[in-house]
Amino acid sequence: MSTRTVREKQTPEDAVRSVNNRFYAAFESLDLREMESIWSHDDRVQCVQPGWELLLGWDEVRDRWARIFKNIKRVRVAVSGVFVRVEENVGWVSCTARITSAFSDSFDEATVQAINIFVQRDGQWLLVAHHASPLPTPPRSAVQ
Amino acid sequence: MSTRTVREKQTPEDAVRSVNNRFYAAFESLDLREMESIWSHDDRVQCVQPGWELLLGWDEVRDRWARIFKNIKRVRVAVSGVFVRVEENVGWVSCTARITSAFSDSFDEATVQAINIFVQRDGQWLLVAHHASPLPTPPRSAVQ
Repeated sequence: MSTRTVREKQTPEDAVRSVNNRFYAAFESLDLREMESIWSHDDRVQCVQPGWELLLGWDEVRDRWARIFKNIKRVRVAVSGVFVRVEENVGWVSCTARITSAFSDSFDEATVQAINIFVQRDGQWLLVAHHASPLPTPPRSAVQ
Repeated sequence: MSTRTVREKQTPEDAVRSVNNRFYAAFESLDLREMESIWSHDDRVQCVQPGWELLLGWDEVRDRWARIFKNIKRVRVAVSGVFVRVEENVGWVSCTARITSAFSDSFDEATVQAINIFVQRDGQWLLVAHHASPLPTPPRSAVQ
């Protein structure tokens, strides 16, 4: 509503929203180093891809992203319906992501409902859990 | 490994695991009052049922459970693969739930991967987010 200096006035919710944006930007860039910088590298991080079971621990999670990034040629992610909640040093984001992926010989479009949990360590918000579930494409909200 | 007095030695992880069990027991009992007692009644609670979009706020979430409880005649929930993480006053559980439901004229079996986030208020852990996504039935882990 008013002009402001982001650095001065950034709330914890702003900071969590910002790192959530970085997560999807890292996905779009297919840059594994950038994706690595978003996550906590501990053995309790969790990742659920749409329709898949839980991956537990940084090694499993990193391997999955490396495989995804290797297989996808190009990807675009449109994020909407972003809802942020912060409770002390834990913050999470619920959002909808429409993911358009190009592979070497095919093309895929998917809409997911995601929840991403971040923990603050030394002033930095790190992703510790990503859980995405499939939604119909186009999403129900677009046709209701 | 050793016998112990649960009340004396209960860790925050034990407490979160326990309320997560109560959540699924409330679902099985189809007792709306019990389900109400598990949740925080605030306008930022979130609920994603398998394949559905986000419900936001206690009124929406309560209405959904009331409708589910009205439609289901009997339900059994088998929870497995439980993983608990606590960071100060926020704890979350990832688990797999196999849900067998009987309706007035049909029968349904579903397996979901869920994440449930709890926040501690005045010593009580309250559910603030439930996100469940569909998995194949039988789950992949059973046939791999």
